[in-house]
Amino acid sequence: MRSKKIYVRDLAIGGDAPVSVQTMWKEALPQKMEELRELAARLSAMKSMGCDLVRFAVPDSQAAEALIRLREISPLPLVADIHYDYRLALTCIHGGVDKIRINPGNIGAEWKVRELILAARDREVPIRIGVNSGSLPKKLQAERDVASAMIKAAEQEIEVFERHGFSSLVCSLKASDINTTVAANEGFAARYPIPLHLGVTEAGPLIPGIVKSSVAMVRLLDRGIGNTIRVSLSDSPEKEILTGLEILDAAGMAKKRPKIVSCPRCGRAGFDTHGFVEKISPILYSMDKEVSVAVMGCVVNGPGEARHADLGITGAGREIIIFKHGKILRRVNENRAFEVFVEELKKL
Amino acid sequence: MRSKKIYVRDLAIGGDAPVSVQTMWKEALPQKMEELRELAARLSAMKSMGCDLVRFAVPDSQAAEALIRLREISPLPLVADIHYDYRLALTCIHGGVDKIRINPGNIGAEWKVRELILAARDREVPIRIGVNSGSLPKKLQAERDVASAMIKAAEQEIEVFERHGFSSLVCSLKASDINTTVAANEGFAARYPIPLHLGVTEAGPLIPGIVKSSVAMVRLLDRGIGNTIRVSLSDSPEKEILTGLEILDAAGMAKKRPKIVSCPRCGRAGFDTHGFVEKISPILYSMDKEVSVAVMGCVVNGPGEARHADLGITGAGREIIIFKHGKILRRVNENRAFEVFVEELKKL
Repeated sequence: MRSKKIYVRDLAIGGDAPVSVQTMWKEALPQKMEELRELAARLSAMKSMGCDLVRFAVPDSQAAEALIRLREISPLPLVADIHYDYRLALTCIHGGVDKIRINPGNIGAEWKVRELILAARDREVPIRIGVNSGSLPKKLQAERDVASAMIKAAEQEIEVFERHGFSSLVCSLKASDINTTVAANEGFAARYPIPLHLGVTEAGPLIPGIVKSSVAMVRLLDRGIGNTIRVSLSDSPEKEILTGLEILDAAGMAKKRPKIVSCPRCGRAGFDTHGFVEKISPILYSMDKEVSVAVMGCVVNGPGEARHADLGITGAGREIIIFKHGKILRRVNENRAFEVFVEELKKL
Repeated sequence: MRSKKIYVRDLAIGGDAPVSVQTMWKEALPQKMEELRELAARLSAMKSMGCDLVRFAVPDSQAAEALIRLREISPLPLVADIHYDYRLALTCIHGGVDKIRINPGNIGAEWKVRELILAARDREVPIRIGVNSGSLPKKLQAERDVASAMIKAAEQEIEVFERHGFSSLVCSLKASDINTTVAANEGFAARYPIPLHLGVTEAGPLIPGIVKSSVAMVRLLDRGIGNTIRVSLSDSPEKEILTGLEILDAAGMAKKRPKIVSCPRCGRAGFDTHGFVEKISPILYSMDKEVSVAVMGCVVNGPGEARHADLGITGAGREIIIFKHGKILRRVNENRAFEVFVEELKKL
């Protein structure tokens, strides 16, 4: 069943829209205009990487005001993440923030939700009902089947929204383990045509977080479930975005963007591939081109194993070979390799 | 079909043996005994993390000699990775190296392989036939179905080994994309009871490498395919091991080991969760205990969302709360948090 389509500013989520990638800002929102401008510049860089949407925690009215000011200069639509205090959501809605996320486990009484709904409906602001396995409404916490308790938590909230004729909803059902996350989302998707935001919550440090998110999300995306994704990592928003993009790629839903193939390097390596990958990545990921680049350690692997790459580099004894579709383009000294490679990259 | 079981020193691969985790050393083998001893100490740390096997590139006879000396002081079984020159394999076999990996794409004429087989049979050294999509034997390079060409490459080599009564084989079929890797291994597993070493080759930098390896390997492991795994990353062997362990966990085949659950942190965070995760990880991963630890930014998430953790920590205003199974244990000042946490960790 295809989900409904909703809009967050000009970003479509659900229906036939491509699966979008989002992240969450991890610091307190700054208060000074100058710092907000710096933040907007960082959002701009995230947008070039392929990010579609950014969420901010709004724990108090200072944060709400800062988010409203940021919204005016942001290149990306912004989401306010609200816990406990529905009035902060009202402030954000009136201030033009593009989307609100609430947690049914702590938003409180129905009359508060109703006020929120009326304001959001007036301003055409979509709302995400974000269910987390660890913070379910009290009554549901004792249930043994966590996935089904999560669906119930979403259900109760959806009922309130539907009673007030509000349909611009997104839902998420996040657990910190793969199987519960997959079961909850599958169960939900079978019953509701509401767009799904996928995520594994508290996924952990970089490596466990990437592994769990990849496995859970690809499993769901492969079954046609999921309309927007957010990878939660105890790391930077940029790494969350890159992981999200790679997950879409693994699910065969890649956005057009540069790709790096690189060998893991071994004792045969003729040059510092890890350092090169580190240096070339920011340049490559900020290019608005669909190019593939191969960074290989030695002639066992490159150019042969990397003949499909648009541009490649490999160590070969004392020199560095730069190749294009498997054919040698230039031989250079190691200290000129980076510069020459970037030069060739820009020619593509 | 369950695979045969073979032994690499005392490590069983295949049959009912648990799926093992391996990595590859990325630098040239050192020559000095002192440096070899340092390397052995690092292998020891890898072993405590959960690594079972380490492979080394052997591009020349100096490397072969160094590997033989390292073997004598290594806490883990060691594999020699041989390309082009079968005589290096002979040196390693005679010197007591525990396993040999050859690439059928470049090992050469059958009489060379025959010499190798006879030596390996005499010394009971297992051999991995390591097929890579990018370096197939010339005749197979033009085939359109890459997965089937990879199986053929393995097949041709297996035939030679079987003709000489050698059965202590492991095979790997690695491509740099998920679908080809999965298809090649599925096709192979349906036909041969030979233990499979899983991997995605040239998986790329950290993030794409982890995503691709996770998705491909979990897909195979879920279907009962794969007996030992190696994650290839353009990063450290330790990160390859951690990723491998997380992949086993995601496939429900976890080794007993510590686990970290942590929130991604947001603007609500009361303390530096990323820094704390970074500091606590090495201590935790070197513990030989099955404990779970939660590192949460604020009271929205912890202790409630982390009540399943054996030990947890969260920021709460100006102080830090340390909790055990969701119950508050101690409240401390931020500058003492790490010390107190480690203290409580050791009590578990």
